[in-house]
Amino acid sequence: MALIVQKFGGTSVGTIERIEQVAEKVKKFREAGDDLVVVLSAMSGETNRLIDLAKQISDQPVPRELDVIVSTGEQVTIALLAMALIKRGIPAVSYTGNQVRILTDSAHNKARILQIDDQKIRGDLKAGRVVVVAGFQGVDEQGNITTLGRGGSDTTGVALAAALKADECQIYTDVDGVYTTDPRVVSQAQRLDKITFEEMLEMASLGSKVLQIRAVEFAGKYNVPLRVLHSFQEGPGTLITIDEEESMEQPIISGIAFNRDEAKLTIRGVPDTPGVAFKILGPISAANIEVDMIVQNVSHDNTTDFTFTVHRNDYAKAQQVLENTASQIGAREVIGDTKIAKVSIVGVGMRSHAGVASRMFEALAKESINIQMISTSEIKVSVVIEEKYLELAVRALHTAFELDAPARSGE
Amino acid sequence: MALIVQKFGGTSVGTIERIEQVAEKVKKFREAGDDLVVVLSAMSGETNRLIDLAKQISDQPVPRELDVIVSTGEQVTIALLAMALIKRGIPAVSYTGNQVRILTDSAHNKARILQIDDQKIRGDLKAGRVVVVAGFQGVDEQGNITTLGRGGSDTTGVALAAALKADECQIYTDVDGVYTTDPRVVSQAQRLDKITFEEMLEMASLGSKVLQIRAVEFAGKYNVPLRVLHSFQEGPGTLITIDEEESMEQPIISGIAFNRDEAKLTIRGVPDTPGVAFKILGPISAANIEVDMIVQNVSHDNTTDFTFTVHRNDYAKAQQVLENTASQIGAREVIGDTKIAKVSIVGVGMRSHAGVASRMFEALAKESINIQMISTSEIKVSVVIEEKYLELAVRALHTAFELDAPARSGE
Repeated sequence: MALIVQKFGGTSVGTIERIEQVAEKVKKFREAGDDLVVVLSAMSGETNRLIDLAKQISDQPVPRELDVIVSTGEQVTIALLAMALIKRGIPAVSYTGNQVRILTDSAHNKARILQIDDQKIRGDLKAGRVVVVAGFQGVDEQGNITTLGRGGSDTTGVALAAALKADECQIYTDVDGVYTTDPRVVSQAQRLDKITFEEMLEMASLGSKVLQIRAVEFAGKYNVPLRVLHSFQEGPGTLITIDEEESMEQPIISGIAFNRDEAKLTIRGVPDTPGVAFKILGPISAANIEVDMIVQNVSHDNTTDFTFTVHRNDYAKAQQVLENTASQIGAREVIGDTKIAKVSIVGVGMRSHAGVASRMFEALAKESINIQMISTSEIKVSVVIEEKYLELAVRALHTAFELDAPARSGE
Repeated sequence: MALIVQKFGGTSVGTIERIEQVAEKVKKFREAGDDLVVVLSAMSGETNRLIDLAKQISDQPVPRELDVIVSTGEQVTIALLAMALIKRGIPAVSYTGNQVRILTDSAHNKARILQIDDQKIRGDLKAGRVVVVAGFQGVDEQGNITTLGRGGSDTTGVALAAALKADECQIYTDVDGVYTTDPRVVSQAQRLDKITFEEMLEMASLGSKVLQIRAVEFAGKYNVPLRVLHSFQEGPGTLITIDEEESMEQPIISGIAFNRDEAKLTIRGVPDTPGVAFKILGPISAANIEVDMIVQNVSHDNTTDFTFTVHRNDYAKAQQVLENTASQIGAREVIGDTKIAKVSIVGVGMRSHAGVASRMFEALAKESINIQMISTSEIKVSVVIEEKYLELAVRALHTAFELDAPARSGE
């Protein structure tokens, strides 16, 4: 008998029929003898509807009051699921973030969980009840309702699992696990049975939008075994856990991540003096623009080129800021490119394998794909290439690192 | 500078535009120097939408969980109004029933208010904030969300006014006050400047659906001056207060109430033995049918006729129950009539005026309207008549008791 925290997202509870399906799934686990805490998001579309209401009053809704409004979304789904469980003869009770209580700081719209009172939940579990908790929301010391920000329900699930020392935190989504890469790009992509927290973080931040990054960090910090599963299909999903070095031979890389959301900016002919990086990135940061990759080459003739990537939505703004900086510091010119893509190989296995980067570069060279930028970390190598080569690059790397699924019979 | 509690119903906050209008009204009072606590209902239609959602899961939704769902309706409107006020430069803060806290018993869906903690509100008022409170909802000792039942927002308003010792509780509705009778039936009906709690109770229970009965009882018990006003029109409304015998000459009656919702049942030839009333009404009550008027005539030949009225929706069920009873106690027959109407004259003035009832009967006789049943209380005389004479009867009584407005110029 295990204690399991299950989190279902907005799509999984998007209609009454789906809520009934979730109830059936919970019932199966309950009947198998597990203790269950279920965390829910709002019905899909509901949070946006509520935000729209608030924006009709004010473009910049007061954060405290916005939280009062949007937190109602989950409050509706938790009660509906509790009802659906009770109808099936499964004792259940719903709790809002305030009732549990999930104590957060007072940063409305993006609050952080400080503490969870597990007494109430433990009492209900002991009494044989399934506990249904509203995700995404909490309450601060003064009793104000707070929300954790988009995707915060994953974080609620993990935080509850940590507080209750649950055996597993299961995140139900619309995919059946974490894949070696996007199956829409590479048909031979394979579901991973297991992945480490670190790898998952790299995959997530690179565009595999299966899990919220904060939730993975949280799970890693408190060592909560996290499993990604499909809401309405059977299957083992992907277990995200610490790297226990169990397997004798680890695959070199676990997956290939990519995204097309970025744009590249280069400031050329920058006088190479100490503090120049700050002079360039300071104003960008002050303009609230997030920077991803940063590359600075060795200088020649006492000038250097400085390149970085930003989200495409921020490209125009970043370019403007950079033009200002260029004239101030006496740089030669600013050039940019929005038609780029980033491709990364991720895997803890590369720590112990030399030559992983060169194998990557070789695979790309074979396909005549030019590399524009390179950035590396301990478990990741990322390159920026021309956008039109993205699919070709991902497929080539998937094959080069032996990630392709064996051809199935009949194929 | 007064402390005023203002309550706005679902229609008054039914759209964003109307919420903005309410904010304008609140702003005016605030700028006139009043301290304000505003109680809101859910947007009109929202509570029904939420109940429908719950009923899609279960015909008999679990009461605790139903309260979790429906209480979200007011939670949305309070935050929207707080935003609209802040946008206008009026400091404001919203509170749910749990946050205030409005402590109730645990009778979900129809909870009663036990206590209100006024500390938080007083602190906010002192700091110059308008306090916006969710009507209709509270929290029990265990922290479960409760609701007060339909129309409970009026009760919240009055209870808050009592707890805060407010100078006045203003109930904003879609009428501009309490009238001598329904203006749709009698064009000369007049708005009353003032009415007593007792009269208002009789008027309300007889079909003048301006205020929730419980709220009026509450206001009377704690002597909270209650004022009914139109949400979007200017005007003094009607003040409901204790009978202070201020005016030298009180009008004999204050108004004429009526309803067409009832049906009449008679069990004839009942053996007149002690306990017969209970034998007849016990099974009706056991079937959860509410009885309004009850008339039993003096017996002749040791049998009696027993007549009562029920809501028309309960007529068929009541008839069935009564047929059973008739055969058990050896009564002669059961007859009934759904085409009836009840007309009542209401007024504390009749206490000191003899002959009010006969003046009523005279007025009806002049119009050849036959009276089927009569029931009297200290401040009310009700008669049941054939439904088709309803308008005629109301107009005749309105004139007979000198309630008609003086003809306006141009008429």
